[in-house]
Amino acid sequence: MEGLTPLGPGREFDRIREVLKGARIGGGGVRVPPGDDATVLDPDLVISTDLAVEGVHFRLDWLDPHEAGARAVGAAVSDLAAMGAGLLGVLASVAVPEGEVWAPRGASFMAGIRDRVEELGGRLLGGDLTRSPSGLVVDVVAVGRTHRPLLRSGGRPGDELWVTGRLGGASGAVRLWEDGRPVPAPLRLRYAHPEPRLSEAIWLVEHAHARAGLDLSDGLAGDAGHLAAASGVGVVLEASALPLEPHPEVSLEEALHGGDDFELLVALPPGAETDGRADAFRRRFGLLLTRVGSLRDGSGVALLEPGNDEPVPLTRGGWDHFRGREEEKR
Amino acid sequence: MEGLTPLGPGREFDRIREVLKGARIGGGGVRVPPGDDATVLDPDLVISTDLAVEGVHFRLDWLDPHEAGARAVGAAVSDLAAMGAGLLGVLASVAVPEGEVWAPRGASFMAGIRDRVEELGGRLLGGDLTRSPSGLVVDVVAVGRTHRPLLRSGGRPGDELWVTGRLGGASGAVRLWEDGRPVPAPLRLRYAHPEPRLSEAIWLVEHAHARAGLDLSDGLAGDAGHLAAASGVGVVLEASALPLEPHPEVSLEEALHGGDDFELLVALPPGAETDGRADAFRRRFGLLLTRVGSLRDGSGVALLEPGNDEPVPLTRGGWDHFRGREEEKR
Repeated sequence: MEGLTPLGPGREFDRIREVLKGARIGGGGVRVPPGDDATVLDPDLVISTDLAVEGVHFRLDWLDPHEAGARAVGAAVSDLAAMGAGLLGVLASVAVPEGEVWAPRGASFMAGIRDRVEELGGRLLGGDLTRSPSGLVVDVVAVGRTHRPLLRSGGRPGDELWVTGRLGGASGAVRLWEDGRPVPAPLRLRYAHPEPRLSEAIWLVEHAHARAGLDLSDGLAGDAGHLAAASGVGVVLEASALPLEPHPEVSLEEALHGGDDFELLVALPPGAETDGRADAFRRRFGLLLTRVGSLRDGSGVALLEPGNDEPVPLTRGGWDHFRGREEEKR
Repeated sequence: MEGLTPLGPGREFDRIREVLKGARIGGGGVRVPPGDDATVLDPDLVISTDLAVEGVHFRLDWLDPHEAGARAVGAAVSDLAAMGAGLLGVLASVAVPEGEVWAPRGASFMAGIRDRVEELGGRLLGGDLTRSPSGLVVDVVAVGRTHRPLLRSGGRPGDELWVTGRLGGASGAVRLWEDGRPVPAPLRLRYAHPEPRLSEAIWLVEHAHARAGLDLSDGLAGDAGHLAAASGVGVVLEASALPLEPHPEVSLEEALHGGDDFELLVALPPGAETDGRADAFRRRFGLLLTRVGSLRDGSGVALLEPGNDEPVPLTRGGWDHFRGREEEKR
């Protein structure tokens, strides 16, 4: 595991650590080894892979197959945004149930993948197509380039933590679906159509001097934990500052522990609100940029709630595919 | 589909053609677009992805989980050999049934992936780990480099077609398993442990002036069809010349239409037997190199059988995951 970026807590990450233990991962033209959001190969190629499985990552009573394919691409490409990289294209390995490759379900899933790649300005760089013994599966390999990778490490005590956009919408939609309740269109959209913040990340590196960052796929608490572990610092989040999706169903809990927002979390040198960096971002992208906390000496993630003097350590992690939402969150 | 290497016949390839139709696939730093065994990105990066699904590509009553993981890596890396590339490493996206990620099955599958990457001299470059609603799944993304890609196109009428090693062993093993008969160790090994011919392919490009080539994953007939289509030529295979795996269960049929041999098929300028190229290869690698046919004006693949004056067109293709072996072959 030498050279591997430390991961935050979580059973899934324990397993990844275990598998990588003793594996040769650095050297030989590998500029940033696995452990960050993507791997960087000399001179500037960024590559990441993201598996989307029907029944685990999406359900076809929530999304139609075209949306499911498109969503898998958006989520995978967000790992490039997390690295401050531009998108070159994707490879897509697809498994489709027997008899459905020409049927509307399989065809629409594949068209969703292709269409979203085009929309994002990328190319289809290859893939594989095979039969699935159960539902639809796609592994999306996102490929991009950057000369200035944005890593999870590099944050320093005193840096301020900022997030783009709003939090909790996607997992709010999932909770409503799971409870059998109607899902309002804005929440549904946040789940169905993740928007990789590609240009935003590049701008934050180039113009706001972002020192560390990643995308929010596991939930703010879990992902802040990854940044803290990789940077060797502690994180304090301010509960009252979190930019919740403006809907009565979206709670602080959702923003902290719900995944799938695919917004950016970045550590900026202090003062971005007063020195104009934050406003320049907002004008440029028409998107919120909100200070949600700061880095300090120490480790782990703590939450400062209104009325308390001291931040309280957050022990629960983010999304874990091997435990599931119910067990993890309630 | 502009710029796409033409694929040979097959329903799976029809679907891939259909999906790629109208997609933007070339330009923007893409040196060899999808359609060959792998994609080449500027300046020299080669990338390919290969999905292995339990019950479709492997069965755990045939292989243990460690072998299944290792086999998926060998098969995927063979696509780099097919391009004349060296191996940099792989990314592996793994799905494991609930409760098995720490259990022997999941752990052994992942160890098989990691161990085979190391054995082949590569690195783990990343991956994903998630829950599977059915069996084990891995998508292996093979990443390599080459300055002189070996393409499927480039073969010319008059070139001779050569294959490395022996054919039919892997699919012979599968047939015996399917018939419920004992599988002799040498055939089992050919299926369980595909050997990517990485150094051999580079040598054939550099020292034998290979003009076109690919790896044999769909069966000789199907893969020769891909080379014929991409090169815009016809292929004649000589039945009596095919280097069958020396076992009474391995027939000509198996060599032509069985997949999974992962040997190389290359088009060489004529005369390699008499000018010493073939012998130099055999000495260098201790591996068979056999002339199995030639390229001519025209299209498609034809078979010359002993006692016939004229080659007969081969209409059946190779392995198709959407039709299955039984339907396709019998």
